[in-house]
Amino acid sequence: MKPAKRYQNIGISLIRQINALATTQSVNLGIGEPNLEPDDTLREMAMRVAASGSWHYTANAGNLSLRKKIVAGTGLDPKDEICVTAGTQQALYAIFQAYVDEGDEVLVPDPGFVAYPTLTTICGGTPVPYALEPPDWKLDAGAVLKKITKRTKLIVVNSPSNPLGSVIDRDALQAIAQAGPLIVSDEIYSQIWYQAPPPSMLGMGRNVIVLNGLSKSHGMTGLRLGWILADQAVLKPILTAHSYIATCASAFSQQLAEMILDAPEWNEAWLASVRAQFREQREAALYSVEHELEAKIPPPAGAFYVFAPVPAADTLSFAKTLATDEGVLVIPGVAFGNAGEGFVRISFAAATGTIGTGIERMGRYLRAASR
Amino acid sequence: MKPAKRYQNIGISLIRQINALATTQSVNLGIGEPNLEPDDTLREMAMRVAASGSWHYTANAGNLSLRKKIVAGTGLDPKDEICVTAGTQQALYAIFQAYVDEGDEVLVPDPGFVAYPTLTTICGGTPVPYALEPPDWKLDAGAVLKKITKRTKLIVVNSPSNPLGSVIDRDALQAIAQAGPLIVSDEIYSQIWYQAPPPSMLGMGRNVIVLNGLSKSHGMTGLRLGWILADQAVLKPILTAHSYIATCASAFSQQLAEMILDAPEWNEAWLASVRAQFREQREAALYSVEHELEAKIPPPAGAFYVFAPVPAADTLSFAKTLATDEGVLVIPGVAFGNAGEGFVRISFAAATGTIGTGIERMGRYLRAASR
Repeated sequence: MKPAKRYQNIGISLIRQINALATTQSVNLGIGEPNLEPDDTLREMAMRVAASGSWHYTANAGNLSLRKKIVAGTGLDPKDEICVTAGTQQALYAIFQAYVDEGDEVLVPDPGFVAYPTLTTICGGTPVPYALEPPDWKLDAGAVLKKITKRTKLIVVNSPSNPLGSVIDRDALQAIAQAGPLIVSDEIYSQIWYQAPPPSMLGMGRNVIVLNGLSKSHGMTGLRLGWILADQAVLKPILTAHSYIATCASAFSQQLAEMILDAPEWNEAWLASVRAQFREQREAALYSVEHELEAKIPPPAGAFYVFAPVPAADTLSFAKTLATDEGVLVIPGVAFGNAGEGFVRISFAAATGTIGTGIERMGRYLRAASR
Repeated sequence: MKPAKRYQNIGISLIRQINALATTQSVNLGIGEPNLEPDDTLREMAMRVAASGSWHYTANAGNLSLRKKIVAGTGLDPKDEICVTAGTQQALYAIFQAYVDEGDEVLVPDPGFVAYPTLTTICGGTPVPYALEPPDWKLDAGAVLKKITKRTKLIVVNSPSNPLGSVIDRDALQAIAQAGPLIVSDEIYSQIWYQAPPPSMLGMGRNVIVLNGLSKSHGMTGLRLGWILADQAVLKPILTAHSYIATCASAFSQQLAEMILDAPEWNEAWLASVRAQFREQREAALYSVEHELEAKIPPPAGAFYVFAPVPAADTLSFAKTLATDEGVLVIPGVAFGNAGEGFVRISFAAATGTIGTGIERMGRYLRAASR
């Protein structure tokens, strides 16, 4: 009953190892989903779908009426340049299955979301990390392009970044797009920004695959609704993979998404309020990081994470003992690649009081350890 | 931009090629989902989830409260012997990814559901069909076991069968279970039966993986809710694969499933009415097959398909011309393997009038062609 080779060295992620230490008493700053609850409008939309929506299969690529609303204004063809998926994780699996062969190289951000190198390995490829450097974690397009070889199949970019909160500027994105191989631009955090909307790679080239969805912006991570935008020829094998992986995304989630996109005024107000909430939580996190951890870090431009330096040689052990001794959960930087060692990801998708308490306890713990 | 090797020869299935010919005027006997609509109770349950349910991530394996209800009475451990999936198609992808290596052989029924050999190929394995023979399509366990080699990784059994409607008896299932390699028992049609509940492979061995869900029994194919039952050690790599493929099944669908399983009396009545409806539709199909196609076939014991012989050498061309000339959709038998040539799958998941009209037109078309 030996697992297939592709899964023999794939364990549960460090993120889940830390989250497994959570108790009901934990101060959880390890979470990767927004602390948002549906408002009355979202609940009413959901109830309308529940009351009269279809429970039947949709087209593999999703209901055409939803696809039309997602691509409205982009110039993309709703018939064959979009595939609705059961979340962006499932989208990534379909893309990697469709394109990454044994021996292929995939350029992935380091620090970066753990699924990128893991999916590469699962598909028989080799993840080639490109380093992002503190303190501002700016992507150096020239350095990324230098890593391209004949075997490079995909380049993954993620802006705003999980775990860094950094945003990649338009020039750097354009330089990457012009590099030639397929690009996967994971833009799932695009609606969570603090100064200006982050640039999208949409329209930067026929080699660009853009991922997005409603999970992070609308607090519906559990409803599994994402999408892939790509050129028809690029999308075709992805759509085939998607059909064998998922058949279709949940019809309920699709119909709810359509209602959300059909209410642009409500939607704008919702997103403004989401951003206001996260702005407040970000301030709380930055204040505590500065005063309790005595670290001055550049404020994240997007997403809901600060990636903060800690004086610990081994951040995994640090995060584990912090969780067990102090009940505070943060994710060790090394969970996101070797370049993350020396840092922890603090999620500020929590009430400001929780953020303050958690970082304060962490500071106290660090000071006690250094004595 | 060449697709990965694993997807280079994977096209859209013959089933979808036929369904692509459907128009609003078509008499569609090609469909693979029940013609059921939620009743008031199901709608109320859905509205309760919509009104107050959680939209957050669930555990990768699904909410523990749901897992407990699914395994109630089975003796399985809800903690690590069940994984809730986004439908059985996603379950199959996770199982095949977790176990099928390059060079492995997978024994698959012929005729059988197209995903079994396709997923084998996608994972680099070789599908080894075991033939089921007309008129009764009985599984000959001895003949299956003779096909086992050192390279056999999985044996797939599907009872009740799509496309055959046949049910495998307990002795044959036990003989297969004792054979040794991993068994995938796809029991998604287990609630759609006509004389007696079909035997399940659950409990027949630690090598047995059982698939089921609510899609077919409760008319919720679009809600993507299935599950995998297996020994803890067998399930472990599947759960890892599932977490990278899907993260979790839809939280909405999970909470709805829990309500359904929490209402055993309503549920029994619902299933009885579903079976009564399909019994009537089955009679209509069998009557028309006998009188219009002049074929006497054994009545299906489960699912909602009749697999009927047609005097056509090439059932794919036949099904295509039938769809375009007569607007009647049936699935060519060859879509389910070479042993299906000479047959068509007629779905009776349709109103009795539609079934009668479709088969009558098909009979007329066949008689005209033979003149």
